[in-house]
Amino acid sequence: MNCNESDTYSVPGFLANGIHAGIKENGIKDLALIFSVVPAAAAAVFTRNCFKAAPVVLDMERIKSGVAQAILANSGNANAATGQDGYADAVDMSRCASDKLNIADDLVLVASTGIIGYRPPVKNIKTSMEALIRGLHPNGVPKAAEAIMTTDKFPKMSYRKNLICSKEVTVCGIAKGAGMIEPHMATMLAFAMTDIRINFHTMNTVLKQAIDRSFNSITVDGCISTNDTVIVLANGMAGNRELKGPSQSLSLFRDMLFGVMSDLSDAIVRDGEGATKFIEIIVDEAGSIADAKKVAYAVANSNLVKSAFYGGDPNWGRIIAAAGGSGIDLPVDAVKLYFEEIPVFANGRGIDGHEAELLEIMSRKNIKVFLKLGMGNKSHRVCTCDLTVDYVKINARYRT
Amino acid sequence: MNCNESDTYSVPGFLANGIHAGIKENGIKDLALIFSVVPAAAAAVFTRNCFKAAPVVLDMERIKSGVAQAILANSGNANAATGQDGYADAVDMSRCASDKLNIADDLVLVASTGIIGYRPPVKNIKTSMEALIRGLHPNGVPKAAEAIMTTDKFPKMSYRKNLICSKEVTVCGIAKGAGMIEPHMATMLAFAMTDIRINFHTMNTVLKQAIDRSFNSITVDGCISTNDTVIVLANGMAGNRELKGPSQSLSLFRDMLFGVMSDLSDAIVRDGEGATKFIEIIVDEAGSIADAKKVAYAVANSNLVKSAFYGGDPNWGRIIAAAGGSGIDLPVDAVKLYFEEIPVFANGRGIDGHEAELLEIMSRKNIKVFLKLGMGNKSHRVCTCDLTVDYVKINARYRT
Repeated sequence: MNCNESDTYSVPGFLANGIHAGIKENGIKDLALIFSVVPAAAAAVFTRNCFKAAPVVLDMERIKSGVAQAILANSGNANAATGQDGYADAVDMSRCASDKLNIADDLVLVASTGIIGYRPPVKNIKTSMEALIRGLHPNGVPKAAEAIMTTDKFPKMSYRKNLICSKEVTVCGIAKGAGMIEPHMATMLAFAMTDIRINFHTMNTVLKQAIDRSFNSITVDGCISTNDTVIVLANGMAGNRELKGPSQSLSLFRDMLFGVMSDLSDAIVRDGEGATKFIEIIVDEAGSIADAKKVAYAVANSNLVKSAFYGGDPNWGRIIAAAGGSGIDLPVDAVKLYFEEIPVFANGRGIDGHEAELLEIMSRKNIKVFLKLGMGNKSHRVCTCDLTVDYVKINARYRT
Repeated sequence: MNCNESDTYSVPGFLANGIHAGIKENGIKDLALIFSVVPAAAAAVFTRNCFKAAPVVLDMERIKSGVAQAILANSGNANAATGQDGYADAVDMSRCASDKLNIADDLVLVASTGIIGYRPPVKNIKTSMEALIRGLHPNGVPKAAEAIMTTDKFPKMSYRKNLICSKEVTVCGIAKGAGMIEPHMATMLAFAMTDIRINFHTMNTVLKQAIDRSFNSITVDGCISTNDTVIVLANGMAGNRELKGPSQSLSLFRDMLFGVMSDLSDAIVRDGEGATKFIEIIVDEAGSIADAKKVAYAVANSNLVKSAFYGGDPNWGRIIAAAGGSGIDLPVDAVKLYFEEIPVFANGRGIDGHEAELLEIMSRKNIKVFLKLGMGNKSHRVCTCDLTVDYVKINARYRT
């Protein structure tokens, strides 16, 4: 993923840019545009929060057509809890972009992240639109990735290239994180561009599968933002025969998309507010994937578990207690727990004698925890970070 | 509740004591006994965690009879995740007490709290049993309350007296808190004594109702311990006609029991690990109590909400986002949010102009948040505390 060549993240037929539009202070980039030179098949997944931000409401209508050509995203203002005025602002922003790009209004998707409860500075955004469009460039993806950052410590980008139907296909994605943000709440945004030719219904299915194992398998603090948005645009420029329904080519594409999404979601956890450790909770031998998820999230969201990781304490009792309180009726004597390869709990009791190895494991930056439920053969993996003093300090900070 | 008279917490026919038995270090009290001079109607509620500690498993069998005469409780060791050996230890402890008290084995209930994964020092407990029993006294309740403390900063006691069927009836309770404890996890224990005469089936119903609005309406960190136990013993010494089924007298008793449980559960939140603020989340206008609870807990357990209270930030956006992510389909435009009497959100957007009043409210030690869902007429109240730097520090501390 580390590549200094400026065209690393370019995708045929896509242009991007990111500039300072005066939403944030100090000249920091705050407005991003991704543009496909032709209308692209579009699929998206949005937050399940009832209080959806205005851009989410607008995108949910527009994505129904399965076609889009541009994504206009800003940081510094979430345009959430802004009522009908906020919705009008989102429409206004998108229309300014579509006018100047000379495309239909409803081909523009909008995303916002930042402070909640305040209308976005639409005037600044409109004033900056010409410069934003003028700077669109095949190598502009890193600028766009930078412009959607809020409290992120680094921009998040990933790409994959592969041959599909003898055509070189590229998938490139950018994201911003999670951990609750500036000043009100976190938002997770991710945008992927690909030149594959694919039916939008098929892409919708593939996107949901990829998200299920990536963005829907991470947690920083268990909170669901009002603005979470994942969008994929596929412009067909690779020239392959259109993918429709299950095939080996579709599997290849799914793996590429999952790879990009997975890189981005991991990066979000690593950059979680105050985080010092990346922890994988792998629940195995569950009776169903739903059960495995429930147990994995109960462990991954436990403040006690997360605090123990911060303290470097191989505190298996808290993991067992979190799993046992998840609502799944676990067979107590069959459950087994491992820190990496070290068994710490089996047959209803702790396993002694590995204290030194456990302390070494807990001192690592990346830690895997395996919880085998003894109920079946389903599994689920959730990535989380530790709960730190810095997390509390960051989130206790007053909104100024 | 503040009373220096040593007989404040005495209940006719009950004796209690608390001593140091060598489970903890430094002579700190760690073994408590509550004894009714006659067998008492007994009801209890236990943790829903699958990994139930040995004393919980034992009590669940014994409580089926509806009769008990003694509660033997220790702090410093949870006897959890100790397998069949731990179960034998719990039986052993209880038998030592029943032998010396000269009562049937199965009239003794046992409770433990403290470190998980290690067998309790049964020898120390047995050696101390005679001194524990010798010191039983009508005024011994405060000693028992002290002996069940772990990281609690103060003992938790409450009582009520009232006339029921022309007889003076007393209800007295003690508890220890929540917030995750020494070194592995939290446990909530509560024991209530009353001299009322009541059918144990009826008491069971009343206990569940009282718990639903007290212990089941608080949260410190959303974690469910392996040892949580609430027991009520009613020895009938008040001489009233036995309460059976609904009646005005039963309502009076329920109010007393609820009063005691509510005092104790509030005290547990106030003494939450690292807590500096006591926050009541009152969800009203819900379609069902289940919905109200789900929303209230989503808000009360949100790390973002809890961190904002710590920072004194009237960050209503986080409350709205937590409610919106609770899984209940909220009517966005009908939801209203208040900090005390100040409206901050209605008609899908924030309400400006109260910043100074909100800052004053947020500086208080006790804060009420009202969330009106506009869906019906059901309500639920959950008490929580703030998430602080000290919470993380306490729980990141290594187990030594």
